[in-house]
Amino acid sequence: MRYYLIAARMAALCLVAAAPVIWLMFAPAASAEAAAPGAVEAESFELDNGMQVVVIPQRRAPVVTQMVWYKVGAADEAPGQSGIAHLFEHLMFKATSNQQAGELDKAVTASGGNHNAFTSFDYTAYYQQVPTDALGEMMAFEADRMRNLILSDEVLATERQVVLEERLGSVENRPEGLLSESVYATLFQNHPYGKGIIGWRHEIDAITRQQLVDFYNEHYAPNNAILVVAGDVDTQGVRQLAEETYGKIPRGPRLPPRVRTMEPEPATLRSVKLRDPRVSLPSFSRLWLAPAYFSKGRKAVDALEVLTEILGGGKRSRLYRELVVDKRIASGVSAYLDTSMRDYSLFNVRATPLTADKLDEVERAVMAEMEKIATDGVSEKELHTAKKVLVSGLVFAKQNQLGQAIEYGETLALGGTVEDVGRIRERIEAVTADEIRDAAKKYFDPRRSVAGYLLPEEDEK
Amino acid sequence: MRYYLIAARMAALCLVAAAPVIWLMFAPAASAEAAAPGAVEAESFELDNGMQVVVIPQRRAPVVTQMVWYKVGAADEAPGQSGIAHLFEHLMFKATSNQQAGELDKAVTASGGNHNAFTSFDYTAYYQQVPTDALGEMMAFEADRMRNLILSDEVLATERQVVLEERLGSVENRPEGLLSESVYATLFQNHPYGKGIIGWRHEIDAITRQQLVDFYNEHYAPNNAILVVAGDVDTQGVRQLAEETYGKIPRGPRLPPRVRTMEPEPATLRSVKLRDPRVSLPSFSRLWLAPAYFSKGRKAVDALEVLTEILGGGKRSRLYRELVVDKRIASGVSAYLDTSMRDYSLFNVRATPLTADKLDEVERAVMAEMEKIATDGVSEKELHTAKKVLVSGLVFAKQNQLGQAIEYGETLALGGTVEDVGRIRERIEAVTADEIRDAAKKYFDPRRSVAGYLLPEEDEK
Repeated sequence: MRYYLIAARMAALCLVAAAPVIWLMFAPAASAEAAAPGAVEAESFELDNGMQVVVIPQRRAPVVTQMVWYKVGAADEAPGQSGIAHLFEHLMFKATSNQQAGELDKAVTASGGNHNAFTSFDYTAYYQQVPTDALGEMMAFEADRMRNLILSDEVLATERQVVLEERLGSVENRPEGLLSESVYATLFQNHPYGKGIIGWRHEIDAITRQQLVDFYNEHYAPNNAILVVAGDVDTQGVRQLAEETYGKIPRGPRLPPRVRTMEPEPATLRSVKLRDPRVSLPSFSRLWLAPAYFSKGRKAVDALEVLTEILGGGKRSRLYRELVVDKRIASGVSAYLDTSMRDYSLFNVRATPLTADKLDEVERAVMAEMEKIATDGVSEKELHTAKKVLVSGLVFAKQNQLGQAIEYGETLALGGTVEDVGRIRERIEAVTADEIRDAAKKYFDPRRSVAGYLLPEEDEK
Repeated sequence: MRYYLIAARMAALCLVAAAPVIWLMFAPAASAEAAAPGAVEAESFELDNGMQVVVIPQRRAPVVTQMVWYKVGAADEAPGQSGIAHLFEHLMFKATSNQQAGELDKAVTASGGNHNAFTSFDYTAYYQQVPTDALGEMMAFEADRMRNLILSDEVLATERQVVLEERLGSVENRPEGLLSESVYATLFQNHPYGKGIIGWRHEIDAITRQQLVDFYNEHYAPNNAILVVAGDVDTQGVRQLAEETYGKIPRGPRLPPRVRTMEPEPATLRSVKLRDPRVSLPSFSRLWLAPAYFSKGRKAVDALEVLTEILGGGKRSRLYRELVVDKRIASGVSAYLDTSMRDYSLFNVRATPLTADKLDEVERAVMAEMEKIATDGVSEKELHTAKKVLVSGLVFAKQNQLGQAIEYGETLALGGTVEDVGRIRERIEAVTADEIRDAAKKYFDPRRSVAGYLLPEEDEK
């Protein structure tokens, strides 16, 4: 599910500070059903310099969310420069030729708002949530740092250290982080999604100031950016402010199409184990390759979205009922579909056995449930309930200013259109039980996946 | 061992026709000990256009071997163009603006000689073995195809089909080929050695004529080539012929240093399985990452070379004695060290159990033998015998014209010097038992490896 991903992909995204977007995960979806779905809610236009603008008026409170999305992420990095996209997420908070580091933070905090940034494989996004009358000031800040960042050796040295510490905390000192990095690198044998968003340590270590300058000049330009403003605003007002700030920045270089090297047809069964003394209870996960949300394979992705809800959507799901309630072999099990990437979706299952000796049994039970869907399909009742839950979630997401801004920004950054956002509901509602069975049959092929095992330390065999 | 690799790496190299170089593998090493080692045997110089020339006079018979090595291989391909380096190995036998396709073949055959070509990760090489008086003609042929190849859409279409058929035969229709491709892709998570030399099918399919033209203009130039002539010649004669042929070709573009993205520190235990109905008996293999032959880690590589002989060098080796003779659990077992690459060496073990149910036991026994070396080291007697065998092999290799030409050509193509060839023997002789134990301890870490299993078809668990 796309709006779920804001939470689900937190592991993959790198955030500068604590992430307010996480709340979406825990919000009850049921209460949202009353909202009117299907209303046209966003307008979009382009500035003369190529910057795309989306305005989502929401008059509930005098607050506004500004997001600037750059269509560049870890998958766009040159070979050997892994981590440079994410490094910018840090550098963008440093001094520009017009302001000291920290001035934006001071302004946001003084207004009672909050701000943050995140990096993914295909985009880097920056946002502020502030009272409506601070929007012009926020645009001035964003426009300034789009082009006037001071990329000195000193700033690079400092932020490189910060990022290496972050890597230590999120990957190297976390068994789950190390395992996940290796599972991605094993699943993607040709596509750049195989290197993690944060980058390899030895490559972060080697990034030069000149590489920063080149990356910034190529990618941080209005014609490679999307401005999303949601909240107590109207299109005309946003247009005027945007023209006065971003509109003054000249168009940047014309960028080549984002064509990445794609995966070969997979033929083997791959697995990755991490043995680590910090692991007390083993766990099992498996990551599957599926078509991208905006691709010719989108019908299958829609089917997998509904399937994921049936299989792993909370305590009513097949996996939870089978493994946790009925068999009592697992303490937790989850399934999610990550559609936040431009070139592939990823289906992920994870399970933790109740006791270490149940690991194999848990894995077999998970695989059996998946196999069952590929063979027997799902019932009309399950289909109906899953769609209802997903649509409710969609409707609810629209109530949230930041969530809605992310929905539009991400859709555009991944190659979709403003109109695509409005089609999410109909895509879900069109899914049939046959499509779910067919998608399971086609995409749950174990050769399209990598199994990951987190294991306690013990003698190697 | 480097000269063994001519045989050992046959699986990785792609050859146009049957490979005469294979004979080195089966030649008895013992008889060669009589030859005088250490004699200065090669001279080298550079043409004005930057082409490097190595001459190895060998007056035994009126025959000569000419090799032209281009310092470009699969690891130098642009992202998305896998297979293009090897495609040239085929294209180079097609028409040029001066001759029809097949004229070279006719000339070689008419002289009673033979010729061939091969592609690896770091080089592409072409050679002819002909009577001495045909050398000038062969140089004219090679010089002509270095710059005058006709790269038409028709030629591309034809040779693309030939290569796709070759891929079918060597990878897709061969379980061992599919498994090996996936093991390499899993071991190399960042370095371009992770994509096979022959290339991914979908990328071979997408190579364009313009990409061929660009690749040819960039890499097929005298300043990116090494000419090696071994046989009944002298340096002055070779220089004169080379200047009249290659010397007339202008220097090509200046090439950037061959800096590749390197591997991160590996943290996990990876494995790849292929289940296939064509597999009747399962087998086990494991591929380890080690330092390159010409690198700061060369002392460890030398130790691993001697270790490999002790562990897997024929019927006297530890693995053979333990698994095949004593335990009687394996029908075959082998170990080899592939030092034919510029950026890494690869240590490889393979074993086939006597019966399918012995697969686990065979794997455990192999790993135990390796562990034993890391813990207890090797005896002085084993060390002495292994060195003697390796040095004999070296001496023998010098008797063979093509083998010797390959030794020089490969050394230079991998970043070594003419002098490095003369140091191979002293490098082996300097290895100590302590160095072997230390190298085993450091490099036989299972996290530096990927296990591969070839399994008969059966129910997936």
